[in-house]
Amino acid sequence: MTAPDPSFQEVLSARFADRLSTSLSLREQHGRGESHHVVALPDAVVFARDTADVADIVRLCAAHGIPIIPFGAGTSLEGHLAAVRGGLSLDLSRMNDVLRVSAEDLDCTVQAGVTREQLNSHLRDQGLFFPIDPGANATIGGMASTRASGTNAVRYGTMRENVLSLTVVLPDGSIVKTGGRARKSAAGYDLTRLFIGAEGTLGIITEVTLRIHGIPETIAAALCSFRSIDDAVNTAIAVAQLGIPVARMELMDRDLIAAVNAFSHLSLPVADTLAFEFHGSPAGVRDQVEAVADLVRDNGGHDFEWASAPEERNRLWKARHNAFYAVIAQRPGSRGWSSDVCVPISELSGCIDYTRGLLETCSVPAAILGHVGDGNYHVVFAVDPSNAVEMAEVADINKHMVERAITVGGTCTGEHGVGTGKAAYLRAEHGDAIDLMARIKRTIDPLDIMNPGKILPRA
Amino acid sequence: MTAPDPSFQEVLSARFADRLSTSLSLREQHGRGESHHVVALPDAVVFARDTADVADIVRLCAAHGIPIIPFGAGTSLEGHLAAVRGGLSLDLSRMNDVLRVSAEDLDCTVQAGVTREQLNSHLRDQGLFFPIDPGANATIGGMASTRASGTNAVRYGTMRENVLSLTVVLPDGSIVKTGGRARKSAAGYDLTRLFIGAEGTLGIITEVTLRIHGIPETIAAALCSFRSIDDAVNTAIAVAQLGIPVARMELMDRDLIAAVNAFSHLSLPVADTLAFEFHGSPAGVRDQVEAVADLVRDNGGHDFEWASAPEERNRLWKARHNAFYAVIAQRPGSRGWSSDVCVPISELSGCIDYTRGLLETCSVPAAILGHVGDGNYHVVFAVDPSNAVEMAEVADINKHMVERAITVGGTCTGEHGVGTGKAAYLRAEHGDAIDLMARIKRTIDPLDIMNPGKILPRA
Repeated sequence: MTAPDPSFQEVLSARFADRLSTSLSLREQHGRGESHHVVALPDAVVFARDTADVADIVRLCAAHGIPIIPFGAGTSLEGHLAAVRGGLSLDLSRMNDVLRVSAEDLDCTVQAGVTREQLNSHLRDQGLFFPIDPGANATIGGMASTRASGTNAVRYGTMRENVLSLTVVLPDGSIVKTGGRARKSAAGYDLTRLFIGAEGTLGIITEVTLRIHGIPETIAAALCSFRSIDDAVNTAIAVAQLGIPVARMELMDRDLIAAVNAFSHLSLPVADTLAFEFHGSPAGVRDQVEAVADLVRDNGGHDFEWASAPEERNRLWKARHNAFYAVIAQRPGSRGWSSDVCVPISELSGCIDYTRGLLETCSVPAAILGHVGDGNYHVVFAVDPSNAVEMAEVADINKHMVERAITVGGTCTGEHGVGTGKAAYLRAEHGDAIDLMARIKRTIDPLDIMNPGKILPRA
Repeated sequence: MTAPDPSFQEVLSARFADRLSTSLSLREQHGRGESHHVVALPDAVVFARDTADVADIVRLCAAHGIPIIPFGAGTSLEGHLAAVRGGLSLDLSRMNDVLRVSAEDLDCTVQAGVTREQLNSHLRDQGLFFPIDPGANATIGGMASTRASGTNAVRYGTMRENVLSLTVVLPDGSIVKTGGRARKSAAGYDLTRLFIGAEGTLGIITEVTLRIHGIPETIAAALCSFRSIDDAVNTAIAVAQLGIPVARMELMDRDLIAAVNAFSHLSLPVADTLAFEFHGSPAGVRDQVEAVADLVRDNGGHDFEWASAPEERNRLWKARHNAFYAVIAQRPGSRGWSSDVCVPISELSGCIDYTRGLLETCSVPAAILGHVGDGNYHVVFAVDPSNAVEMAEVADINKHMVERAITVGGTCTGEHGVGTGKAAYLRAEHGDAIDLMARIKRTIDPLDIMNPGKILPRA
């Protein structure tokens, strides 16, 4: 959008008035996520209030060939928000109504801009919760668009399993509803799953119907220290292989624990650590805890520390969620580079060992953490994006980690998404299936106006 | 394929020799499923042994514009196998190798023609099982293609949740692999879920990588009789709403119990009945059983009969799986018409009441059964397809049941698929999203040779 059509701006201004802005600070906020990626500013930011607003904006952009980049909470880690070809940032954060909650059916419908914390505050009084927890207080629309998961996925699944249906504005401005409220359906192509993880490149998600869950009768959490990361990972593998239904099983390496202690004013033992959470009936939780404690002991773990009071648990998970900021805080002025891969669990130990080896000579602060029950782990680096030498160094480590994950049958991203950051790895991972993805993209978005340059950059 | 190109037949014969047949009996067997739908014979049947065979067949059919109807075990209930435009039935049943099992990663890869019973026999010695159980001994490829689920879905999910990746031959004969072996991925469009439930209309699934599970430490089953179907359904709703993680929760109405007693030589109390199965640790199962028993009592249920020995359990579930045949057996010479819908659980009681009302005046044997933990229920009718009056009567009941399900936010099919039987209801259920499905179909299969006339009949 180097030379925006004047009629486009006029119509947009007339329709959205003070909900349209070209202020530099707002454009800067909307052109970046939370990570190290190059910022590319949109030409303007527009705030939608409902699906009809979004449809109007998309129709107008389609008529003028203007790119649209949907924006939720701005917590992207892989460059999803960069306006690489200019265009309009479509901010959905004011679409934040919880439209409907059914305690009977354990489902709810929300506008895309509702955040996960807002939703859980809304549900708590009814004894309900929404389990998908990527750490960041992302919007539900953003989480659907990146197929988010996080700490509870080992028990409750990811956005893929917990979305029942979507309202989507297609690239021509038409509105479709994918799916209904039945728990399962065999009626036609799975459009819901097509838009989940499409990162706004096929349409804009405006409403989401979600499965929700009753707050478990009993919740317990525990922290276990190990002599080595191998021992911690092997414990996690054993828990997964025995099918013990833990709700959370998180790895934090000793470097991360040190960073978290400093950032969150804690005094956790500085060691490679697993954090568990157990959900269920009292007897069910007792069974799980005993089974896990045995495996921890078998692998030389100790300090099976309990956090059964809600405040203690919240403090623990808050510290875990702040891991990204804790690593960055070790180097004032730095930005975070968080890369994630996911591998078959039998390959997890080898991949993490390999990654630790890569990090040994790394010149910037870095730490490993992960949702190891799913075989998913992250490395967070604290980088100076203006330093080309260290950016190249980290890019090289990232490349080796990702290539190793793909080689063992894993994926270049378990939950952060592709954005611009992982696009280079898609063909290695998917082979010719990429061409099929590209055909679908061209069919649905022939003008390439929906978050262009993400997932499948066009030649 | 009224006038097949001679060069097509010559090339196919030369390549497949005695694996190609035009025998009438084979074509008849391949042109029908297990239900009442009109039989439409393919012109020939070809047996594939591997993905390369399938690719060769598809390339040849594409070059000559010949329709291809994939065939697994022939257990379709909605007319998926009818060669409505002639063409080739591509039989995958000889592609029955279990290619790989990983007990460590709890996954396996099978050729599409492996049946679920064959897979479970293969896994049993390693203490593993594959939970998706639609009743029929369908092939894994067929189950993926119809997004099958069945009795265990309430606990373990459907094919949608249990397939990690697919090998698919596209309509141009090219071969793609969707997904890898990671438990989750955010890397690109979810092609795996696009082919699951596509009923062979977008490509042919030749290999499937599945999640598998450890056989639970404790398994218990119970049968509970109720004074009315309402009491049974309300119990099921309460179990679902409390999130008690039952592995199976099946409704059988009193008419079905009578039919099953006669067919399977049992003497179950003739009453509206729920059958449960519980999986878990000993204490976990005890908790579940106590919680369910309370709810059964609250709803006036009795005869909480136990089947804890494996033989007893197997007899119970075998009888349940034979329900379709039990209903047909009430009327010698009849065929089964089995329709399924799935609704939000809060609507289940109302929908089943409504359906019971429709059945009161029905002139043919009929029974209600269902995977009520998911809100999914079936009606099985024993029909004489040559009797136009009764076929119209049953079609009308089916229509009312399906329309009611759609009206309350449910789906026209929870697990049987669309085929030809439910195609008329898709627009009522999905609205304009049907047009998006049709665009995807045209892009991927521009010649409309992949199981034409199913899901989305072209004008």
